[in-house]
Amino acid sequence: MAEAQRFTVDAFHRGRFHLVQPAERGHRAGLDAMLLAGAVPRAFCGQLADLGAGAGAAGLAVAARCPQAQVKLVERAAEMAACARRSLALAENAALAPRITVVEADVTLPGRARRQAGLGDNAFDFVVMNPPFNTARDRATPDALRRQAHVMEEGLFERWLRTAAAIARPGAGLAIIARPASLEEILAALRGRFGAARVLAVHPRPQAAAIRVLLRAKKGARGALALMPPLVLHGPDGQGFTERAEAIINGRETLFAD
Amino acid sequence: MAEAQRFTVDAFHRGRFHLVQPAERGHRAGLDAMLLAGAVPRAFCGQLADLGAGAGAAGLAVAARCPQAQVKLVERAAEMAACARRSLALAENAALAPRITVVEADVTLPGRARRQAGLGDNAFDFVVMNPPFNTARDRATPDALRRQAHVMEEGLFERWLRTAAAIARPGAGLAIIARPASLEEILAALRGRFGAARVLAVHPRPQAAAIRVLLRAKKGARGALALMPPLVLHGPDGQGFTERAEAIINGRETLFAD
Repeated sequence: MAEAQRFTVDAFHRGRFHLVQPAERGHRAGLDAMLLAGAVPRAFCGQLADLGAGAGAAGLAVAARCPQAQVKLVERAAEMAACARRSLALAENAALAPRITVVEADVTLPGRARRQAGLGDNAFDFVVMNPPFNTARDRATPDALRRQAHVMEEGLFERWLRTAAAIARPGAGLAIIARPASLEEILAALRGRFGAARVLAVHPRPQAAAIRVLLRAKKGARGALALMPPLVLHGPDGQGFTERAEAIINGRETLFAD
Repeated sequence: MAEAQRFTVDAFHRGRFHLVQPAERGHRAGLDAMLLAGAVPRAFCGQLADLGAGAGAAGLAVAARCPQAQVKLVERAAEMAACARRSLALAENAALAPRITVVEADVTLPGRARRQAGLGDNAFDFVVMNPPFNTARDRATPDALRRQAHVMEEGLFERWLRTAAAIARPGAGLAIIARPASLEEILAALRGRFGAARVLAVHPRPQAAAIRVLLRAKKGARGALALMPPLVLHGPDGQGFTERAEAIINGRETLFAD
């Protein structure tokens, strides 16, 4: 007998798409997913994989912004993948749904199992990822499903970026949102796979340390790392979003201005 | 017979110290050295090593700002070390000179030779470094002495940080100025040596990619990496320094606000 579940339906991008999410359990999407989607260039067209998609917020946001994008949402938690499928069945998302598919699979599946799940070698023009970001020692999150979405495993970026490099075609784009604490591990895992990395810090206020880092890179590129001007979410008083943050969150501007 | 040489004497920190430099040859100090000195906390007192000191600009700037600091300038190029000694002999620097010594030695000397040169194990409370920053492939700099100061060797940060970790006492501070392209190599070389790294990007203008990165860390610390609010050197029109940049360059403020 299935456990009774409650869901919410939230509007994003000022109503251009809607998202079904567990009301109380699981990792609820929001700012991080919108920022990650904002790292994809305005003119992107082609196949995009959203690794660790959760309910699909980032992937749907890309589909909403980029009318030529085909999006594959990859999520291992059955409950979250079910939410993604419910989102695609919403009348409000009818215009986007034909360009989006859900793959219920672990991002770190080895080669053959990964290909059988529908994540072929060199098959994607862009890969985005918002991996679990709390350390395994962080026990502050009580709920098991939410914990699964947040817990950072040892060597996670190495495994996720191995998959990303396998499924991305040469020259394909990559975007990651993570905590600044993960920067060393990410840069080490990019080596030999993705180059020309651009790092963009997200600060809550102008004078506060960054709470997130966005990284864009290109498969097989050899260009040097660049540090981009940061995004500041709120003004000095901490009230409301800055104009630029709001434009990115609502899909009207892109993080890397391309 | 010694080759005829021309020198300049330049005032820094609005005249609080002066620096002798080769007029045409060698790496002339300026902004980078002043920013590096600005990464040292206001209240610093104790022994500080300036690795790859050149003519001594960063070390002299720390001595000018921190009246309790004892500074050791470490430079392998004889001509630059000679400039540093000339600087210490200037009447204008008489107040600082007793707290500054020059060590003519390669930063990467192995243990015994390093100790004999005066760089003892666990002997320093702070280490600053401004390593050569052009890649070995960069042949744009024609002059041999200037090239030596700029050429980035493979694995340079690994070797320099090995020395820094050896000569720094547990808990000692570290500050590095480098190009953003070196960030991955620096973070990898910090591992197991220095932790609680704070990264601060230096942007020429608000909307331009960073041209330098400052990094502060602590020997043996385990804290996570943090991305600090950046320093912007010039306003949107590119004319003149911003108020904050000018205050740091002139030794009135510190980069990490401590």
